[in-house]
This record gives sequence, structure tokens and C-alpha cells, in this order.
Amino acid sequence: MPIFSRRIDHWLAGKILDAVGRAPIRIVVGSEEGVAPPGVSPVATVVIGDRRTLFDLFIDPEIGFGDAYADGRIRVEGDLVRLLEAVDETWPADRSWYARWTSKTMDFWQANSLHGSRRNIHSHYDLGNDFYQLWLDRQLLYTCAYFPTPSATLEEAQIAKMDHVCRKVRLQPGERVVEAGCGWGALALHMARQYGVSVKAFNISREQISYARDRARREGLDGQVEFIEDDYRNISGKFDVFMSVGMLEHVGAARYHDFGEVVHRCIGDEGRGLLHFIGRNQDAHFSRWIRKRIFPGVYAPCLRRAMEVLEPRNFSVVDVENLRLHYAETLEHWLDRFEKSQQQVSQMYDSRFVRAWRLYLAGSLAAFRTGTLQLFQIVFAGSRVQPWFWTRAPLYTQEQSEVEKAQWIHAMS
Amino acid sequence: MPIFSRRIDHWLAGKILDAVGRAPIRIVVGSEEGVAPPGVSPVATVVIGDRRTLFDLFIDPEIGFGDAYADGRIRVEGDLVRLLEAVDETWPADRSWYARWTSKTMDFWQANSLHGSRRNIHSHYDLGNDFYQLWLDRQLLYTCAYFPTPSATLEEAQIAKMDHVCRKVRLQPGERVVEAGCGWGALALHMARQYGVSVKAFNISREQISYARDRARREGLDGQVEFIEDDYRNISGKFDVFMSVGMLEHVGAARYHDFGEVVHRCIGDEGRGLLHFIGRNQDAHFSRWIRKRIFPGVYAPCLRRAMEVLEPRNFSVVDVENLRLHYAETLEHWLDRFEKSQQQVSQMYDSRFVRAWRLYLAGSLAAFRTGTLQLFQIVFAGSRVQPWFWTRAPLYTQEQSEVEKAQWIHAMS
Repeated sequence: MPIFSRRIDHWLAGKILDAVGRAPIRIVVGSEEGVAPPGVSPVATVVIGDRRTLFDLFIDPEIGFGDAYADGRIRVEGDLVRLLEAVDETWPADRSWYARWTSKTMDFWQANSLHGSRRNIHSHYDLGNDFYQLWLDRQLLYTCAYFPTPSATLEEAQIAKMDHVCRKVRLQPGERVVEAGCGWGALALHMARQYGVSVKAFNISREQISYARDRARREGLDGQVEFIEDDYRNISGKFDVFMSVGMLEHVGAARYHDFGEVVHRCIGDEGRGLLHFIGRNQDAHFSRWIRKRIFPGVYAPCLRRAMEVLEPRNFSVVDVENLRLHYAETLEHWLDRFEKSQQQVSQMYDSRFVRAWRLYLAGSLAAFRTGTLQLFQIVFAGSRVQPWFWTRAPLYTQEQSEVEKAQWIHAMS
Repeated sequence: MPIFSRRIDHWLAGKILDAVGRAPIRIVVGSEEGVAPPGVSPVATVVIGDRRTLFDLFIDPEIGFGDAYADGRIRVEGDLVRLLEAVDETWPADRSWYARWTSKTMDFWQANSLHGSRRNIHSHYDLGNDFYQLWLDRQLLYTCAYFPTPSATLEEAQIAKMDHVCRKVRLQPGERVVEAGCGWGALALHMARQYGVSVKAFNISREQISYARDRARREGLDGQVEFIEDDYRNISGKFDVFMSVGMLEHVGAARYHDFGEVVHRCIGDEGRGLLHFIGRNQDAHFSRWIRKRIFPGVYAPCLRRAMEVLEPRNFSVVDVENLRLHYAETLEHWLDRFEKSQQQVSQMYDSRFVRAWRLYLAGSLAAFRTGTLQLFQIVFAGSRVQPWFWTRAPLYTQEQSEVEKAQWIHAMS
């Protein structure tokens, strides 16, 4: 390669390193030695195969990296998660005008209107239940689990999560619960079975709803749980509890006020509710690569923005818990299972898909480990509700007795 | 009284009732039968002695009532707290243009500038330590207590509160803590004594600081705890933990960004912190009567506004707990002790003062009971801090063992 071209490559690699805040990584182009910040030992190496890719990363490191990694035009030598963590820790939150501008464009094209939401949700959640069954837990919970102890299994932690949210709102037998965004139905069925409530569960993913209905019938819970294929905006009826786990991310900040109106229509000033969602410390747009290739329309609010749902209708915030390390733990399980199922995934999708999903899972794991993303559970109440617990202690005495029971079962088996 | 005047009185009383949302109360002028919403049995009766007072209430029910009650121009027949609760429940949050305008005027005159804060704080906290000793707990904690069980005594609950906040940030021996707004020093001394940390505690109330310094010397903790008579804006030094219990109310929303900068200057991206403060569900100004007569410059933020302290510097919200019923319980104790000390208070101040403070304590109790006011504890961390607890369970296992110990001691004595 002529010296001139080598110099350009070197200069571009240096610029890319600058753009990501001079993270302790090495960028190598072709057979060159590569560029790394001096005096630190790089946690991993990004090997860029061709100059087009180098230019892509120079123009837009976020989308350039994601697409090139999925295409196989970039190789990572070393631990992918550690690489992404290192970049998360140094990449300035306030990115380039180009990133902000393309993000605005995406906001427009991926807007979560009634129609847009259907398209956004379909493109992710209707990839095929077989695929998700390969790497989620047995009950297909696709949200942050709750590990009472770090050694709990994923299946245990997902059940513990369901109990954790049910206890937080103290479900009583006979109460009416509405669930906005019910996935494959595990939580709705759990609430009905374990807490004796009746549930109306909404979701616009056809595949998920059809799976959930089958499961309700099989388990004889279809009299108690109604799965409705419809948008949260069309929820009608009066309920005691509003439950939403992993759905706020798909509402979009522009619609928080309307979402709050829906919640108020459901539970008025007398009901209780829980929002479980991916959040942030500061307002920022979601990774544009994730929005382009994985999760169109997704947005993770900081608490200030999330309050736009609850404040206008005078809802009272009872409790906020940040569970980000639990999401990191959950994602470790998912990534591990995903890697172990590579052969089966490869029979369903091409290698581009496999690499894109690896990057998505690894990137999410890195984001929750470093705190780029947070996981909030907000318990709230209508303005006329008296708090239903004196202290939070009962949540933990119940949990404690279950941890002890589980440890006893582990010991016996 | 001529019929014409009686009709005006009746009409004015009806208008006042409308202004407070037709609360189930009776308003009586002179010897008349009075006005009450039809079909409900009034919880209490407001007896208005003269027409001037009636006009005052018509123009401004908030300040009019407070001043007339303090002057003795109004009598309440029945339970004062129940009366105030009834009004809290019906009075629209979005009050008249007159209320909003006079509130803005107060914001200006009571602004919490360096000088204004000194004046505001002096007028309340420097009323005399003897006075506060009459009705606060033995250690003079003038903030919401934490009752592990509703039957805990006020003294126990104030100690439990101090342990609760210390455990939430997991103080370690040898750490450096800065406290912004330290009252009479109880928490600073507790942290030093029980958790082995060194504390720099700031306060601009001369009387409180001088009391706190004396106590530190008496208890031999003056080497470990430094009480500094200065404004939070002048805090310097690096600390592991930023602690502020019942001070944010005196910062004023206009200065949240600057306050966040002070916090960041103290603990950077690597420290932990706790804010304990009176809050609200929705943004609104504080009672103008309280601001005029009791607490100049006070403001209770909703969570959205409170986030303006933490978000700009990328602080991570770890935990939010709402303890409003604990504040109601605390205020019941204070009001009860205040009433029992009436004779001593009357020797210190005139009867106007006694009535004003009764109204302030009763009104606060009503506000926390009805949810007009909330009490938030926010635990937060710098952006580079890993959460220091896996779940919140350890908070409650420690608390539980203390509750059991206390019950055992009660049983033995």
C-alpha cells in the first residue's frame, strides 16, 4: 500500500478514536499496526477490513460500526463486551450534530403513531417465537429479571421479578388489572394464577398475543386473563391496577402525556400502578444503530422525562428502584444462551442477523454494566390513594423466605 | 343586622366555599346559621367574627384564613386538622390568578440568594432553641422521622431515620461526609459516632450551629465533626458522600442547577448522596401563608423539578422512597407535644404566635395525610459508581433486627 494511503488510514483511525473519546481500544486497518491511545493497554482490537468501512466509521461511528460488524467487514479481537464497555465509558453523551440530526430524522420516520407502533413492534417481536425460545427463559420474559441473589438462575429470577412487581403494588384476589404490553403473557398469567386477579392484557405483536392465548387456554386461565391484540391507546374499562413492564420504551417521549391520560382513564385517582422501563441518567436519544436495525422507535427516558407520564394527572410516586445491574445479569444469561444456540439461529437466519443480534445483546450488556442505561421500576398511585405499605420491609421478608426455600431445594436436589 | 347585610355575608361565605372547592365544612358569620355544601355533614365549622375578615377571606382565602386564625378573628369549632384535610382534598391545585401573582411576588422578595437565604433561615430556625426543645425529640431533629413500626416513639423513630439514611448510602468507617443543612447537628454526630465517618456540616442558622458545636464538644466528637456556619454554595473540599436532610426546600427551584454543581464539586463522579425533602406530585407553589408567616423562601419540588439537581451532572438515581405517612406521624407527635407545652410557649411568645404555629403544624399534618405534600428520599450516585447494593433487602434485615431488639427492651421494662 502506498505511504500516502497508509497515512490517510492512520489519520482516519485516529479521528475515529477521538470521536469515541479516546477509549482504550486499538483500531487496526488492514495489516497495519493500528492506532491506540498512548500509555494504556487496549482492552480489545477493532480490525477494519477495507477503506470504505473506515470512511463509514469516520462519518458515523455508531451506525458505521454496527453495520460493518453485522456485515463482517469489521472483526473484534478480544472481548466484544469489554470493547463496548470501554467505548461507553469514554464516548461523550453529547454527540455530533450529525448524530443529533439523523436521530431527529429517525424520530420522524419511526414515530410511534397507531400505525407506526404496529410497524415498529412487528419488526422486532414478530421475528418468530421459535427464535426467542432459544435464548429466553422457559416463560419467555423479555425484560429485566430480578435476582434475589446473584446466584439465582434466569428462570428463578424471572419468577422473582414477577413476584417483586406484584408485591410492590400488593395485588389482592379479585382485583382487576390491566397490563399494557404483555409480551408472551407470562406476567398476566402469573398475576392471575398466583394472586387471583383478573387481567386484561394488551399487545400489538400478533405472534406474542397468539402464543399467550394458547398458553392461557392450556393452563385453564382463559376465563381470568383476556389477551387483546390492540394498542395501549385503545384500552378501555376501569381497573384497580395498571401494570406495564418493558413497554414505556416503545411509547416515545412525544406521547407521554397521552399515555398518562390512558393510565388515568384506567385507574382514576383511586388506583395503583407500576412502570418498569429502561431509562437513563440524562435525556439522550437511543443508539441509532439499535433503532435502525433492531428496535425501531425505541426511547429510554431519564426520570425527569418519565415524570411527564405521571405528573399531569397528579399521580403520586410511591417508590423508584434502579435495577440496572440486574439487567446486566439478565443480559449475560441471554447472551450466553444466544451463543450456545448459534447453530439453531443460523438455520433460521443468515450470519448477518446472528452478528447483529450478538452486537445488540453485547451492547446492551455493556450499557447496563457501565450505567449508560438504567432500569427503573416506578410504583405510583392515584392522588386519592393512601400508601398501602408502611415501610418496604414486608417486600423483603417475603422475598427472604423464598430465597431460603430455594436454597433448601437446591441443597436437597 | 339588616337583611341586606345578612345577604351580602351569606353571598360572600358561599363564594369562599366555592373558592375552596366546596369542601364539606360550614362557614358561619356572626350569629348566622352559616353556609355549607348541601347533602354533606360538615367536618368542622369556621366561625368568622367580623365582616372585615369575611372580605379578607373572599379576596384571598389562603392568607386571609391564616392571618385571621392567628389573630383570633376566626374560630374553628371541631377538629382543626380534619377541617384542613377536608379543604386540602377539594381545593383546586391551580388557584386564582391573584394567588399565582402574589406567589411570584413572594418568589422575588424571598429569593434564596446568599443574603436572602440568611434572612429566610434566620427568621425561622433562630426563634430560640428553648422553643424547639419544647416539642421536638430529645436530639432536636426537625425533619420527617422514620417509624419502623407505627408504634415506635418519636425518639426511636428519629434515630431509625438517621440509621435509615446512613444505611441507604452505606457509610464506611473513615469516609468523608459533607452535610448541607445540618440543623442542630444530630445526624452529623450520629454518622460520626455510629458509622466512624468524618463530617463537615454546613448551616447558616447561628443558633443551631452554636448548639451543635457545644454538643460536639460535650460528646468528644469535635475532632471528627466540623460544624461550619456557612452557605451550601461555599462548601469546598472533596467527599465520599453528600448528605442533605430537609434542606432542598430552602434552595429554591431557580437554584437547582447551581446546587447540583455544588454536589458535583463535592463528590464528583465517584461519590454517593442522599436528598431528603418535602415534595409534591405536581409543580405548585408552597402555601403563601406559610411563606409569609412561617417559612419564607420555602419551595417543595415535584420529582420532575428535583431531577434538575441531578440530571445535568449525570448523577444516577439509585432509589426513591416516599415517606409521607411517616411525616404525618411525625407531625402528630410534634403537634401533640406543642399543645402540651402551650403554657411554656405562651411565656415565650404571644397568643398570635401560638395560634399561628398551631395552624402551621396542623396544616402540615393535614397536607401529608392527604397527599398535598409528599416526603421523598432520593439516593443517588456519581456516574462512575457501581450500585453498592444488589437488592434493598439488607436495609430491612438490619432494621428488622433492631425492631425486635426494641420490642424486647419494651417488653423487659
